Amino acid sequence: MDVILITIGDEILIGRTVDTNSAWMAAELNVLGLTVREILSVADEGPAIVEAVERSLDRAELVLLTGGLGPTRDDITKKTLADFFGMALVEHQGVLQEVERLLKKWGRPLNLLNRSVALMPEGADILLNRRGTAPAMWFERNNRVLVSMPGVPHEMRHLMTEQVLPALQKRFELPPIQHRHLLTAGIGESQIAEKVADLEEALPPHIKLAYLPSLGQVKLRLTGKGADAQALGTELQGWLDQFRARIADYVHGLDNSSLEEGVLERLAARRWQLGIAESCTGGKIGARLTRVPGSSAWFRGGVTAYSYEAKSSLLGVNPETLAHYGAVSEQTVQEMLTGALRVFDADIAAAVSGIAGPDGGTEDKPVGTVYIGVATRDGFSHVKRVQFPGDRAANMEWSTVAALNMLRRLMDGALG
Amino acid sequence: MDVILITIGDEILIGRTVDTNSAWMAAELNVLGLTVREILSVADEGPAIVEAVERSLDRAELVLLTGGLGPTRDDITKKTLADFFGMALVEHQGVLQEVERLLKKWGRPLNLLNRSVALMPEGADILLNRRGTAPAMWFERNNRVLVSMPGVPHEMRHLMTEQVLPALQKRFELPPIQHRHLLTAGIGESQIAEKVADLEEALPPHIKLAYLPSLGQVKLRLTGKGADAQALGTELQGWLDQFRARIADYVHGLDNSSLEEGVLERLAARRWQLGIAESCTGGKIGARLTRVPGSSAWFRGGVTAYSYEAKSSLLGVNPETLAHYGAVSEQTVQEMLTGALRVFDADIAAAVSGIAGPDGGTEDKPVGTVYIGVATRDGFSHVKRVQFPGDRAANMEWSTVAALNMLRRLMDGALG
Repeated sequence: MDVILITIGDEILIGRTVDTNSAWMAAELNVLGLTVREILSVADEGPAIVEAVERSLDRAELVLLTGGLGPTRDDITKKTLADFFGMALVEHQGVLQEVERLLKKWGRPLNLLNRSVALMPEGADILLNRRGTAPAMWFERNNRVLVSMPGVPHEMRHLMTEQVLPALQKRFELPPIQHRHLLTAGIGESQIAEKVADLEEALPPHIKLAYLPSLGQVKLRLTGKGADAQALGTELQGWLDQFRARIADYVHGLDNSSLEEGVLERLAARRWQLGIAESCTGGKIGARLTRVPGSSAWFRGGVTAYSYEAKSSLLGVNPETLAHYGAVSEQTVQEMLTGALRVFDADIAAAVSGIAGPDGGTEDKPVGTVYIGVATRDGFSHVKRVQFPGDRAANMEWSTVAALNMLRRLMDGALG
Repeated sequence: MDVILITIGDEILIGRTVDTNSAWMAAELNVLGLTVREILSVADEGPAIVEAVERSLDRAELVLLTGGLGPTRDDITKKTLADFFGMALVEHQGVLQEVERLLKKWGRPLNLLNRSVALMPEGADILLNRRGTAPAMWFERNNRVLVSMPGVPHEMRHLMTEQVLPALQKRFELPPIQHRHLLTAGIGESQIAEKVADLEEALPPHIKLAYLPSLGQVKLRLTGKGADAQALGTELQGWLDQFRARIADYVHGLDNSSLEEGVLERLAARRWQLGIAESCTGGKIGARLTRVPGSSAWFRGGVTAYSYEAKSSLLGVNPETLAHYGAVSEQTVQEMLTGALRVFDADIAAAVSGIAGPDGGTEDKPVGTVYIGVATRDGFSHVKRVQFPGDRAANMEWSTVAALNMLRRLMDGALG
């Protein structure tokens, strides 16, 4: 079934706002087995909206519209759609109550402007918005559906997840779907594809595999369709386990958890305290870990030793080691690890030193050369030399992911 | 003059990729005085591309197409456009040489696949791409222009800036434009608007002011149009100085320099070494500074002391200070500053300690309470308490920007 997405908003056409709503919606619809045929952004003007809507309804069974709603702007889109579908605007009690509830919560008075938000096209289905004042409006004509939603991302996502997607499944009798995720790091999309090629081949038609790569990480998504939710769940779990077995060393989590969350969960399980010694990553590793609420329970801190002096004074790296092997060397990273364990009185530590670029590369240590290491209080340590191909920003990002992943692998017993 | 932007790519329609190209292009075209009427994303298929191109050329004088080009995929778009404009594909020597040059640089062989990249529609203008193998193709029909570019963002931006935008100015005889930027931090869009309201009023019609806000920072852009480049430059400079005078304390740079670059430039000017002591920002300040190539010359390093122990052992914060005033206090930040100056043997230091959330807030120190301080070797220090309204991520980001900006203000003599 074909879908067209329309985003309304001048701010998109002048480049002030990037349309992130469409990508999110497209991914969600795709999971339901719906095909987005076209994504369209048009101006905040009646004629432009009518033209886009008319054209889209001719070419797709479902049209989803975002933007152009809300206390100050709802008039254009709402009025335009009401006229287009030949409906009058009448005050909707449910919406009015919801608006009053929200304004009370926000401590704001109900003025005429807000009151106009409760005017709804008579005959459209109204899906209340618990996150904002503008609800979604569901229109039908010759068996085709148009749903209009506010453009504020968190309101749109809430309305889609809670109301629109379930309603679409019902209306178009789409088979219920489920998805499961395998989160990997330290392995590329193509390497995974090789390792699981035969499994992917063997997947039944109602189960699909998708690769969702990001810098240094790849998320595998298994999506299944089937009426019997329990049977499907069991079946998906079976496949998930098989895929996981093939790439076990690289899996840091399931479904919705980030690599840093995976590291912190493993620290919590062992009640281990972590200390970090950074150089070329400049603090990024600590910044990633501390994004996670509650990270302070297991992350003692980090030292970013960007200079020789700091490496020696703060981490106790021997100046002779630096002079003899250089800051970017296995020996220096070993001593950074020892220092991090000591200064943070940590159970486990990670250290990184490398040449992010663009300058500083040498014949035997070109830009992108990075030494990454982990060590534990009981004396185990592991240091690896890696060669990253990117620019400064990418090399810093890859080094950060690689260090977090090495911590994860150590705690998974994958470093031997 | 109306413009339509078309993005080609299945990855956008399934939500794997967010279309950031269109927003960037729209902003650039807007500056030239061109109006983007519609932004369109379609599938990587001949019929879909033809339909979109045909419809767009009927409705706009200029159509810019991105995506669907490149070593592995160029066949569809390129072939489709060649057919659409009734052109044959012939090998283009300039492109072939460029491809060979790039492959040599990347150390890859020239295979048939790459060679096909050099096949170009006979009669289209070819704009060479110094950043990748696929050039831009410029087509004309009944006085309307269509330009097709690769979708890789940095390649597209390079082609647009270096070739397409100048060519468009020439082709459509657009008045030459110039823009200047004032980069501010620590002041909101609306506050700036108040301070410069009368100046904004007084701007002549050929000079426009735009506010480009980002978390904690606002960029002011003055855009002028005029045939006499030198006169316009002088005029813009005059306005820039007037606007700057109104918000001098908040301006950290001009045109293209980030806040962290502004800090590093000021450090370089004084030949000062910087040390950082972080807590709630978790390493973000160091991460921001070290994004800048060459930052190692002036950034000695940072300590992220996430635990009481680390604050004491690494920075020498008195345990009694922590016990009596707490980690989030003026006294603790003062001692963190002293410690940072000492351990990094630094000329200037910044320190941050706060409650990023979601937990850890108290009656007198709610979530978002952050103490930010700067100090110099000669004994000057300044600590400020700030209350940020955001969630954990936003509070961390704001704290980072605020600390960098306080360093900048100290070196600008704005802290008294």
